[in-house]
Amino acid sequence: MITSTSNQQMKNLVQLMKKSKERKKQGVFVVEGPKMFFEAPKDWVQSVYVSESFEKAPEHNERLASYRYEVVSDSVFRSISDTQTPQGVLAVVKMPVYPFPALFQGEKTQLLVLESIQDPGNLGTMIRTGEGAGVTGIIMNHTTVDLFNPKTIRSTMGSIYRIPFYIAEDLTETIHEVKKQNVALYAAHLKGTKSYDEPDYTGACGFMIGNEGNGLSDEIADLADTYIRIPMEGRVESLNAAISATLLMYECNRQRRRKA
Amino acid sequence: MITSTSNQQMKNLVQLMKKSKERKKQGVFVVEGPKMFFEAPKDWVQSVYVSESFEKAPEHNERLASYRYEVVSDSVFRSISDTQTPQGVLAVVKMPVYPFPALFQGEKTQLLVLESIQDPGNLGTMIRTGEGAGVTGIIMNHTTVDLFNPKTIRSTMGSIYRIPFYIAEDLTETIHEVKKQNVALYAAHLKGTKSYDEPDYTGACGFMIGNEGNGLSDEIADLADTYIRIPMEGRVESLNAAISATLLMYECNRQRRRKA
Repeated sequence: MITSTSNQQMKNLVQLMKKSKERKKQGVFVVEGPKMFFEAPKDWVQSVYVSESFEKAPEHNERLASYRYEVVSDSVFRSISDTQTPQGVLAVVKMPVYPFPALFQGEKTQLLVLESIQDPGNLGTMIRTGEGAGVTGIIMNHTTVDLFNPKTIRSTMGSIYRIPFYIAEDLTETIHEVKKQNVALYAAHLKGTKSYDEPDYTGACGFMIGNEGNGLSDEIADLADTYIRIPMEGRVESLNAAISATLLMYECNRQRRRKA
Repeated sequence: MITSTSNQQMKNLVQLMKKSKERKKQGVFVVEGPKMFFEAPKDWVQSVYVSESFEKAPEHNERLASYRYEVVSDSVFRSISDTQTPQGVLAVVKMPVYPFPALFQGEKTQLLVLESIQDPGNLGTMIRTGEGAGVTGIIMNHTTVDLFNPKTIRSTMGSIYRIPFYIAEDLTETIHEVKKQNVALYAAHLKGTKSYDEPDYTGACGFMIGNEGNGLSDEIADLADTYIRIPMEGRVESLNAAISATLLMYECNRQRRRKA
């Protein structure tokens, strides 16, 4: 049993939770809690740490038995956990890497293209909602908050394991590649004259969402085929990025359900 | 100029930001940053504190001139601010109180009914999005996170000043009052068979949203006229509460725009 926070593996866990650089170097990320752990594809899981109490809890017995794991004293577990109410299991999981074509499914393609999203919870929520809405892939630039930040991972509620993504070194170039696949690109933009529920999204399409404070840069917005806007009543000037993304993705979902 | 964190006014500000009980006792809350401050109805503002740098910044000069304010040294301001990048102005603002009928606008009534929402950011986002979607009032039970929590206030982006709300001591009783006004109530619920985009929301209606982890309690869900569900693809089991609320409120908005 690991009983000290200065144990090398515990130190490494903490580094992996705190530092994006360390995650990239090792090609792994950390997931916490039974839901996130048991949903992880088994061959992605590299190492598992459970608290004493978690190991003893009868409800996890059977599922836990099929993993190799290390037991950590409850007090050490509490001190390294990233959450306020630790849930007794932490796992180091391999980062998936998707080839670019994995994001496309012909006419069913629905992409989310993110520029410089800063809030980890927003990013995670967009991935979770994206899976629900039938998104086939998510593209983000490298100035978007780290996808493998513990808070992002937690907010995905497991969708991180299932939605192909692509982190673009040069978003402009990547968008040009997307356009070659005949994907119609829509940007939520204040210049939009069409309401978001007017275009036909039943063919391959993608939605571009910009940074929480500043929206899309002109350079990226210029690459959209169509600017759309979300009607807002009262004195609201903009909606949260995850909220805007939700409305666009689910309008696409709604149209495709109606057509099916 | 206030140069010490032990100044009585500074101590009170910190208490007001930290403690819901203190806010209730004094009937005020604290807003931070120029957007939230300048949007506050002037007769709600009780006291204003600006940092030295904020006072000197030429862009605020003109607007600031019409307020009585106290100057706080930059270092004291930084240490009492609730945000990581303080924006130089904090104000103590009177809590609005709305009579119950203020939430209703006849056929145009669109209510959001919240049960035990726990995340301040979620609550704030629902208020902001609600204003955008044309919500006429928000009802929440008293076990919902405090509306006047600094994080909730920040997430409303100013909508807190404009959306009438009602905090119910007994949510069941309040919902019975709502039903007497001929408002059709819809609950997002796993038992729902109708998709959320099937019912007609062009008349007076309300959407019931439950706690992030557990959804609506049976007692509250039983009061709904109709259970609806949000279709989800992949392996998504549920959506974030603010995301679900968004889809329902904006579906109502979409239908009303189309009809208008």
